[in-house]
Amino acid sequence: MSEKSNIIIFDTTLRDGEQSPGASMNIEEKLRIATQLEKLNVDVIEAGFPIASDGDFEAVRKVAQNIKKPQIAGLCRANFKDIDRAWDALHHAGDRGRIHTFIATSDIHMERKLQMPPAKVLETAVKAVEHACQCTKNVEFSCEDAVRTRIEFLAEMVEAVIVAGATTVNIPDTVGYAIPHEYYDIIKYLKDNVPNIDQAVISVHCHNDLGLAVANSLAALRAGAGQVECTINGIGERAGNCSLEEVVMALRTRHDIMPYTTGIETEHIYSASRMLSTITGITVQPNKAIVGANAFAHEAGIHQHGVLMDKETYEIMTPESIGLNKNKLVLGKHSGRHAFVARLVELGYDLEKDDIEKAFVRFKSLADAKKEIFDEDLDAIVADEVIRIEEHFKLSQMNVTSGSFAAPTATLQMWVEGDEKKTAVMGAGPVDAVFKAIKKLTGSKAELLQFSVGAITGGTDAQGECTVRLREDGREVIGQGSDEDIIVASAKAYINALNKMATVVERGNRVSI
Amino acid sequence: MSEKSNIIIFDTTLRDGEQSPGASMNIEEKLRIATQLEKLNVDVIEAGFPIASDGDFEAVRKVAQNIKKPQIAGLCRANFKDIDRAWDALHHAGDRGRIHTFIATSDIHMERKLQMPPAKVLETAVKAVEHACQCTKNVEFSCEDAVRTRIEFLAEMVEAVIVAGATTVNIPDTVGYAIPHEYYDIIKYLKDNVPNIDQAVISVHCHNDLGLAVANSLAALRAGAGQVECTINGIGERAGNCSLEEVVMALRTRHDIMPYTTGIETEHIYSASRMLSTITGITVQPNKAIVGANAFAHEAGIHQHGVLMDKETYEIMTPESIGLNKNKLVLGKHSGRHAFVARLVELGYDLEKDDIEKAFVRFKSLADAKKEIFDEDLDAIVADEVIRIEEHFKLSQMNVTSGSFAAPTATLQMWVEGDEKKTAVMGAGPVDAVFKAIKKLTGSKAELLQFSVGAITGGTDAQGECTVRLREDGREVIGQGSDEDIIVASAKAYINALNKMATVVERGNRVSI
Repeated sequence: MSEKSNIIIFDTTLRDGEQSPGASMNIEEKLRIATQLEKLNVDVIEAGFPIASDGDFEAVRKVAQNIKKPQIAGLCRANFKDIDRAWDALHHAGDRGRIHTFIATSDIHMERKLQMPPAKVLETAVKAVEHACQCTKNVEFSCEDAVRTRIEFLAEMVEAVIVAGATTVNIPDTVGYAIPHEYYDIIKYLKDNVPNIDQAVISVHCHNDLGLAVANSLAALRAGAGQVECTINGIGERAGNCSLEEVVMALRTRHDIMPYTTGIETEHIYSASRMLSTITGITVQPNKAIVGANAFAHEAGIHQHGVLMDKETYEIMTPESIGLNKNKLVLGKHSGRHAFVARLVELGYDLEKDDIEKAFVRFKSLADAKKEIFDEDLDAIVADEVIRIEEHFKLSQMNVTSGSFAAPTATLQMWVEGDEKKTAVMGAGPVDAVFKAIKKLTGSKAELLQFSVGAITGGTDAQGECTVRLREDGREVIGQGSDEDIIVASAKAYINALNKMATVVERGNRVSI
Repeated sequence: MSEKSNIIIFDTTLRDGEQSPGASMNIEEKLRIATQLEKLNVDVIEAGFPIASDGDFEAVRKVAQNIKKPQIAGLCRANFKDIDRAWDALHHAGDRGRIHTFIATSDIHMERKLQMPPAKVLETAVKAVEHACQCTKNVEFSCEDAVRTRIEFLAEMVEAVIVAGATTVNIPDTVGYAIPHEYYDIIKYLKDNVPNIDQAVISVHCHNDLGLAVANSLAALRAGAGQVECTINGIGERAGNCSLEEVVMALRTRHDIMPYTTGIETEHIYSASRMLSTITGITVQPNKAIVGANAFAHEAGIHQHGVLMDKETYEIMTPESIGLNKNKLVLGKHSGRHAFVARLVELGYDLEKDDIEKAFVRFKSLADAKKEIFDEDLDAIVADEVIRIEEHFKLSQMNVTSGSFAAPTATLQMWVEGDEKKTAVMGAGPVDAVFKAIKKLTGSKAELLQFSVGAITGGTDAQGECTVRLREDGREVIGQGSDEDIIVASAKAYINALNKMATVVERGNRVSI
């Protein structure tokens, strides 16, 4: 928490967010997001669930080692094995390491999932917190499904885990069931009825199943909560979590009636949103609050007139406050290396010298082919040239014929583990033909879950950005590729996904609170 | 309002929703949405802003003529000309016609936009309502920017327009600025301080700039509001409006603490959401509450275990309640006409016999090419074969070559106003080449605003659905095309957009309240 702020922003994009279907990230991707979260100045980064898999463990360890300012949290169930494993990953962050342990407290979860009586659940929680406190003083405890928990038992549990040493107690709306005034009453009840409540920070963690995660979080703050758990773009299980950008901008915009502040550097919000969309392939809808493409677009004639006459008539926030440069055209053929690097930094990319060089070469070649280079193009260049991983497979050449009077055919030549191979294959369409050719040459058994093409704006000479989601042996990866030729981009994306399959964090059991 | 319900659902997808950038619809599209809204059993359909343009007028008139159960509202500013024009369109609905007039009441809007003193604004509003009451007894009045209006003036205005004859008074959060407890207080104040408040229904209309539109609407209901204005998928100006599906499902799911009911037939929600996305090209994000692709997807291992053990541990609503058939695979090669038509009806398509025939032929040909036919494929077939418009331009044949060792080239043959023409053009990529060829043959001057490809799931032998957004002379259209060949689909979409350009509702001045 920065000195002036009084609300702790706990970001769980890398843990609960990463549990969105298809949002699995590899370690490098998690580190990139963590670096952006550090820029945003979040107070706590929940980096993963270390016991879930070796990959998750490694990701949490790397984030704990490399991120220097925010606290780093790792999730663990209420048992010693989970907690020890979490601390093995987290201790690299020293005092900034936070153990986050949880157990379900609602009757329905205790009876039907845990199959434990309440007294046993309470005992398990207390023992877990005491054990965690032997590792660190920074211990958070969550009552899973708190909103559906009997309020007296919830108060008893909160009191007991604070006695056991928890410094943060989280009251999650695990199933996205709460209504703001009800959630307010729950937090208020705890404030009024738990004798030692002032010895811990009350945290809130809301899911968005009824579209109320942000409103519930704000209601909880008014009732005395001091920490909000949230994710970039509101990603997360099912309908997602409380959106970081919405809760932060609501507090900022309505400081007049909600006198709470966060340490968030809001001008990095837009970059963070774009980066997450690019990495996960999960885009935001145009009418998404704060970061949607239309959020700052004033369409109505009367509105436009009003906006011109006085911005405040319709604009309650400025696009600049979230780092959105409305004039998105940034670079062209004559832009030099300096302007190029400056824009990359504005977009949130901190690249090594070699990577800048690779990206700049690609930029120059693109600038020759098209007049105007947009932020989207730069994202695509970085994704394609820099954020590469060990390449088992590499495209060398391809040619495709398709249309209404030719059977779609792909001729494709690629490197497969060091050997150059080629083939020609027919398909239902050109993308199908290309994917079949790649499968044939690589012998991949991966199942295609999704193929998508990012929306192209500003002319079809723009680069096509393709995303491919594959599944094999329970692991899911997203591959991306960009090219002025959409079919070549699809091939690059498929090959990128196959390369990632080897490096992806193995998907163990996940949890949600 | 159905007999058992006590909350009026006022849908403004066709008015405020249609003001989303790029969401312009033609009259046939508006009628299709209106028909689906009737199935949903909304109480009021706001069909447009008749004075805005001849196209808007026609759309409102057609909806008033063709839709038989819901009330039909038309928006008009607080002047006689707007009101008369609105009634000219609305009177076809008889007693179900509702005039919805408005004027801004906040100091900032009165001073800087209207440049009128409050007394003059009040007089204008009263005169407008009195004039509207000469047409119909069903008159709604909106105080634009009510949330930022001085509360005493707001109360004075509400009292005066009720005296003048307004039967519904709307208190919109025009700029999406309110916080739930604040909005509750505003509605409560009016309930407690306006002497004649029981003679009208209080309506709420919330924008989602801070992500709080649904929460604000629910807070207002608790304070005594009786009508919620909302849109399918929450589309609308900027970050959109209160989402119909979220507010309705929140009321249904939490009836225990919000004893309000609506007449909405919730099992039509999913179809309505898909239909709107298909028509406007504005998709919902995967983590959108209720209708997002992940809203009912339980990812976490522990969750899945819990869900299997007892659905209620994590599921607060069933997918069936919104008409989402989780087993999306519906049809295959051996499916007959009966199964095909039955599924179309479930998806919300009521087709004429000829159209069914055309769609069935296409279905059979697709079923030969791919094993499994998904709902998405059926949407694409209907969009491509049935929802056609007068065709000035038509694709006859095309062939495309592209790849890393060939300059992308399109050879294209098409009908242009009755003449068959052909050309070959090179481009930056295959889509660029195709679009250039079409522009060359049609002589179109339209500017390409966006090109996108719908995500393809379940194999690349699925049909590619392409969307093209064009602008010419201030008019914007969305064209769509589908084909197993993504490049052919892009050509169809571009040509569809050019055909639509001729039929689109001319975009006059729009307003938002």
